[in-house]
Amino acid sequence: MKLAQIGPRGAERPIVEHQGRWFGFESIRPQIDPGFWGDGTMTRIREALDRSALPEVSVEGQRFGAPITRPSAIICLGHNYHAHVAESAGVEPTAPIIFLKTPNTLGGPDDDVPIPRGGEKTDWEVELGVVIGQRASYLASPAEALGHIGGFVAVDDLSERRFQFELSGGQFSKGKACAGFCPTGPYLVTADSLDPGDLRLRSWVNGQPRQDSTTADMIFDVATIVHDLSQYLVLEPGDLISTGSPQGVASSGRFPFLTAGDVVEVEIDQLGHQRHRFIA
Amino acid sequence: MKLAQIGPRGAERPIVEHQGRWFGFESIRPQIDPGFWGDGTMTRIREALDRSALPEVSVEGQRFGAPITRPSAIICLGHNYHAHVAESAGVEPTAPIIFLKTPNTLGGPDDDVPIPRGGEKTDWEVELGVVIGQRASYLASPAEALGHIGGFVAVDDLSERRFQFELSGGQFSKGKACAGFCPTGPYLVTADSLDPGDLRLRSWVNGQPRQDSTTADMIFDVATIVHDLSQYLVLEPGDLISTGSPQGVASSGRFPFLTAGDVVEVEIDQLGHQRHRFIA
Repeated sequence: MKLAQIGPRGAERPIVEHQGRWFGFESIRPQIDPGFWGDGTMTRIREALDRSALPEVSVEGQRFGAPITRPSAIICLGHNYHAHVAESAGVEPTAPIIFLKTPNTLGGPDDDVPIPRGGEKTDWEVELGVVIGQRASYLASPAEALGHIGGFVAVDDLSERRFQFELSGGQFSKGKACAGFCPTGPYLVTADSLDPGDLRLRSWVNGQPRQDSTTADMIFDVATIVHDLSQYLVLEPGDLISTGSPQGVASSGRFPFLTAGDVVEVEIDQLGHQRHRFIA
Repeated sequence: MKLAQIGPRGAERPIVEHQGRWFGFESIRPQIDPGFWGDGTMTRIREALDRSALPEVSVEGQRFGAPITRPSAIICLGHNYHAHVAESAGVEPTAPIIFLKTPNTLGGPDDDVPIPRGGEKTDWEVELGVVIGQRASYLASPAEALGHIGGFVAVDDLSERRFQFELSGGQFSKGKACAGFCPTGPYLVTADSLDPGDLRLRSWVNGQPRQDSTTADMIFDVATIVHDLSQYLVLEPGDLISTGSPQGVASSGRFPFLTAGDVVEVEIDQLGHQRHRFIA
């Protein structure tokens, strides 16, 4: 099942795809927020679709927002692709490396993104996002973790590398939480409809290719990540885990950083395409 | 003005102190959540108190919860006291070092705290917490920042040092976001009632003194912190900023780490006293 939220920022309405058409389900749940998960919402949507009880919605010309609202946390992985660790001249981690973005960084896939004031090293990172569907704490195994995933989304985990590396003692969050730094979507695919093990993920800057890899190059796969994190913190329904980025970012030294006017596109197999312009 | 929330976990009700007595104000606002700030709630509470329109509440024997609910972010400072940097053998930072805790770590001041599974180095940190009262982005000066503060609270920024330093490539959040790792309260004092510049803050383990310092030893003061952070991220109403801890923690090597059965107390002048027991 494919879910999205369309409309002006802060006033998005939830929609669901069915047989190639989109239907609004705000009569069932006003937003895809933490409360969406686990109270039978998806069953009610399916039943309403079967009864043809939801209104069809035209998405033509509509803004897509992030397909999730107000997660309690956005947890990101660093150094989780073999080839990206190699380009960063880093050492492969023995456990998932995590940091957090603030939830107010969430934006739609095609929203303009401001280069932050003082930013000189703004960088892209296409990443597979995992949305938690069920509270997870001390899970017994990676296999059990899979049952706690609600769905998957495309994420551009934007960074301002100067803030990230130089202005916070090496703690990443200061360069990861600038306004608009988490373009997400265009839609969420529920966990029952997608195998995250080998998805091609790509990015472009001004139409020129940058990243082109597959989730099969992850050091820690999705199930391992969710299982591992549940040993240290409590994952809440609606939380977003961004699972790290493959090689091909600016901080590798192979490409220039972003400036106002640049257009970044990111795409993940089955999870859609983003296109956002950077502005001053 | 002094605000708190009492009652069972997840069902706390907000109260306000007036002339040494406590009054419930859930008729005005059900919780001290992000929406509490900035919609005239405090004015309505003051008017209701003046009209004696709020019911008196006995706090005797009641559980105090955290005096804030569902912040969008908990932002913590590291290395922000001169003497603590000295005991950590660190270098004084030239800008505030930040990391995040997940909001679901919030707990009441006297709630039991589990030692996380696999935890071997659980540590206390008494800290002055700043609650944002007004959205803050690109503030022009530290002076302007003061006007965006809603109030102050006592925080115990608990850490599992092994997770913090050894299991996440040096990124702190993995050891900072365990369940119950942010005891907060017992109450919030609004910004108009407190000067944060020279508050004594102390902690004890099993009655033995550990930390005893003053906020005057901060490297970056409260106004500077809020101003600085607003240059990198957007601070939302209700967000909690924990401003770093003074010397006297276990990771200094001077004291043992916590184990099940230990009781930690923290206290900040004018912001009350916490007492929480650690459990397996």
